[in-house]
Amino acid sequence: MVELADIGVLGLAVMGANLARNAARKGFGVAVYNRHGGRTDDLINEFGSEGRFTPSKTIADFVASIARPRPIIIMVKAGKPVDDVIEELIPHLDEGDIIIDGGNSLFTDTNRRFHYLTEKKLRFIGMGVSGGEEGALEGPSMMPGGTREAYARIEPIVTKMAAQVDGEPCCTYIGTEGSGHFVKMVHNGIEYADMQLITEAYDLFKTVYGLEAPAIADIFADWNEGELNSYLIEITAAVLRKVDDTGKPLVDSIVDEAEQKGTGRWTAQSALDLGIPLTSITEAVFARALSARRTERAAVEARFPHGDVAKRAPSAAEIDAIKDALYASKIVAYAQGFEQLQVAAQQYGWELKLGEISTIWRGGCIIRARFLNRIREAYASGTGGGNLLLQDYFADAVIKAEASWRKVVGLAVAEGIPVPAFASSLAYYDGLRRARGPANLLQGLRDYFGAHTYGRLDKPGKFHTRWSQDGSEVKTSD
Amino acid sequence: MVELADIGVLGLAVMGANLARNAARKGFGVAVYNRHGGRTDDLINEFGSEGRFTPSKTIADFVASIARPRPIIIMVKAGKPVDDVIEELIPHLDEGDIIIDGGNSLFTDTNRRFHYLTEKKLRFIGMGVSGGEEGALEGPSMMPGGTREAYARIEPIVTKMAAQVDGEPCCTYIGTEGSGHFVKMVHNGIEYADMQLITEAYDLFKTVYGLEAPAIADIFADWNEGELNSYLIEITAAVLRKVDDTGKPLVDSIVDEAEQKGTGRWTAQSALDLGIPLTSITEAVFARALSARRTERAAVEARFPHGDVAKRAPSAAEIDAIKDALYASKIVAYAQGFEQLQVAAQQYGWELKLGEISTIWRGGCIIRARFLNRIREAYASGTGGGNLLLQDYFADAVIKAEASWRKVVGLAVAEGIPVPAFASSLAYYDGLRRARGPANLLQGLRDYFGAHTYGRLDKPGKFHTRWSQDGSEVKTSD
Repeated sequence: MVELADIGVLGLAVMGANLARNAARKGFGVAVYNRHGGRTDDLINEFGSEGRFTPSKTIADFVASIARPRPIIIMVKAGKPVDDVIEELIPHLDEGDIIIDGGNSLFTDTNRRFHYLTEKKLRFIGMGVSGGEEGALEGPSMMPGGTREAYARIEPIVTKMAAQVDGEPCCTYIGTEGSGHFVKMVHNGIEYADMQLITEAYDLFKTVYGLEAPAIADIFADWNEGELNSYLIEITAAVLRKVDDTGKPLVDSIVDEAEQKGTGRWTAQSALDLGIPLTSITEAVFARALSARRTERAAVEARFPHGDVAKRAPSAAEIDAIKDALYASKIVAYAQGFEQLQVAAQQYGWELKLGEISTIWRGGCIIRARFLNRIREAYASGTGGGNLLLQDYFADAVIKAEASWRKVVGLAVAEGIPVPAFASSLAYYDGLRRARGPANLLQGLRDYFGAHTYGRLDKPGKFHTRWSQDGSEVKTSD
Repeated sequence: MVELADIGVLGLAVMGANLARNAARKGFGVAVYNRHGGRTDDLINEFGSEGRFTPSKTIADFVASIARPRPIIIMVKAGKPVDDVIEELIPHLDEGDIIIDGGNSLFTDTNRRFHYLTEKKLRFIGMGVSGGEEGALEGPSMMPGGTREAYARIEPIVTKMAAQVDGEPCCTYIGTEGSGHFVKMVHNGIEYADMQLITEAYDLFKTVYGLEAPAIADIFADWNEGELNSYLIEITAAVLRKVDDTGKPLVDSIVDEAEQKGTGRWTAQSALDLGIPLTSITEAVFARALSARRTERAAVEARFPHGDVAKRAPSAAEIDAIKDALYASKIVAYAQGFEQLQVAAQQYGWELKLGEISTIWRGGCIIRARFLNRIREAYASGTGGGNLLLQDYFADAVIKAEASWRKVVGLAVAEGIPVPAFASSLAYYDGLRRARGPANLLQGLRDYFGAHTYGRLDKPGKFHTRWSQDGSEVKTSD
């Protein structure tokens, strides 16, 4: 009798194939299936020797080749294809089998699928997987959401597949319903902000100080030795250092038009739903949208002529100031992202553990960084969460960086270089550190034209002024 | 035989009652109905003498009292109540009758209802109504969307109910499906930005220059005489001038916590869907969200001690600079909003006429302003739309204001006063007027970790660098 596989992988494009190879390399028996058999053959021909694969030509054979209760990872395009694959699988499954969606599905879709499959006495795990192709193969960061029982079934497998940092796997149980995909979504949103901040620093070095790509690469490589140490800073140096066939820096020939898939946009939309001021990530999403309008930008540049910025090499202090601005802005972006996780946990009844989430983001994923050890400590300290800016380590870092941060944003504003993420992070900080803001006027206006009422500092209740009548104030509620 | 009413109004809370009175005062016979009869009685008792009302106690009587094909405005809370009322009405209606939803419904709900009722051989108009309670009574700005035929039936009535500017009604046919509610949603988003910009100017006068409310009122009253002339600037002066029973400026006692209903958030979410960099409105929405976190703000202020800003009265030039910053930022906010209308028109197949939309926003609504005459001219000039910033009047205004705009944002950044809408508008402008931005680095990073490919300036096609292998570049598509 043939030995049954420990896990199945359905969908063998590069992410799926690499996850299957990852599991096989770690010693697990892996059933594999792809709608178009060619991909299955390619996988077996090229990498079949890496471990115990069981290829199948039909869904029925594929399901039958996995040990019960069957864990089946599906790696197909987010949206309708996920629903289609689930419907194809259902007739072949037995009670308690587990479908694991490893794609970037919208968390509300995952909520829906979770409840749908639970009703059918099947189990569903929405699992965020970060790390790109390489991470999928070598060990990604994995964010599984579903029931604890379903997770217990796959835990021995996925914790071995995940990246390991200091002996801990970059995989932990996130919570119920679509919480795994929600956490992955916010991870991607933070990734948008991280990349935008790097881009703004690059822009200042290039446009204000006139540095060439290799010189900027040296600065990022240097930064990667300190508190900014992270995968994205590291590969920024590598990308900036790259020379192409023309003998010139590759980056200077790349079109300045950034594309985006859905997760950054979803993160911003979710923040708007939850009432979180998620300015850094949202500005990063908008910056990509603006970059995509190349024709319009050329037309507007022609209409608004402006002289070249006078360029001069930056002093060491000026380089440090940009590092400070990037670092402080990064703290704000993470503070906002972690606030989104906290509010979502409350709103949706998920028990998200921020310390564990920062732990599994330390390796495997795109935003992996030394920095996350500090966030882990902040949220593991038993203070129960709250804004990251209130944690001593980050508060002190921001206070230390603040003067430079203002100088850099001021410089960009004066020189006409857009730094939307630096500037919106600073505006958020300045807005948050004021017990008394200016929204009292806004409430006065809203009461004037819409009778929306306002609160008073000197007495409880809600009030309305009869602006257009006798101007008297009436109490509308206690 | 009793004369049949020209129009029906269902839902007699203050907005519905005022629309009914508006129609009656203009000479139309108005059938009125409210689920709880008390409101109907109140309306008739208090205002019955204003015109020809036909009150009913049941939906059946209400519908029967209107001339066919019946136009029935429903004014109930957005969401499920609208669906409920529609279901209640359907059994009593005849082919061709027209339900008009005058509330702030989400445009996608209106799309759905439009097609649902069309299938039932009924007609549906989603009509944005702006102007608050007073506008509803005296003449609002009205944005009806649906079929042209349905609009033709109600046109003689609604164009009389609407505000009139220079002999033109502030009401015109917008387009099919939910386009009327979409346009109203963007109107409200722009209103958010307008109010946030006013609030930031107020904050600078108060916090940096130490002016008291009455002195700031004088400045806004003065601004209202010039290019900023608008309803919101006018009532800002009125609100700032108001003294309450304590003998002190009312605004100083109002709690600085702004509330929001759904439309600002929806506008930002729609922009994210459409890929529009709608930074000003979105920052305004986030600023309200931040204002609502009063407890957190107090805690953060305590952790980040900062000295008082040294205050000194502003010079005339400094006051003018803030006006310039507000004006330029306002142009950007409107440019972004009108871009959203243009992209939506394309995306959803609506023939939105920007010139007509700016025409009907000149009166009745909250954002009514002299400014809209200029937008109307810009979009009526036959140049076919495009970014407002490319229209001469606005381009010249921004160029004139630019230096002051930078100075004011720089001042706020240096002094630690958050001006998210001023700053994000400036960053948008700076990003838009550059043919070559920095997103080339971003594309390089995305290709490095995700093989997302990039375009090149020097040749067509998409490319991928084999970063972790031999570093060679491969062409991935033509």
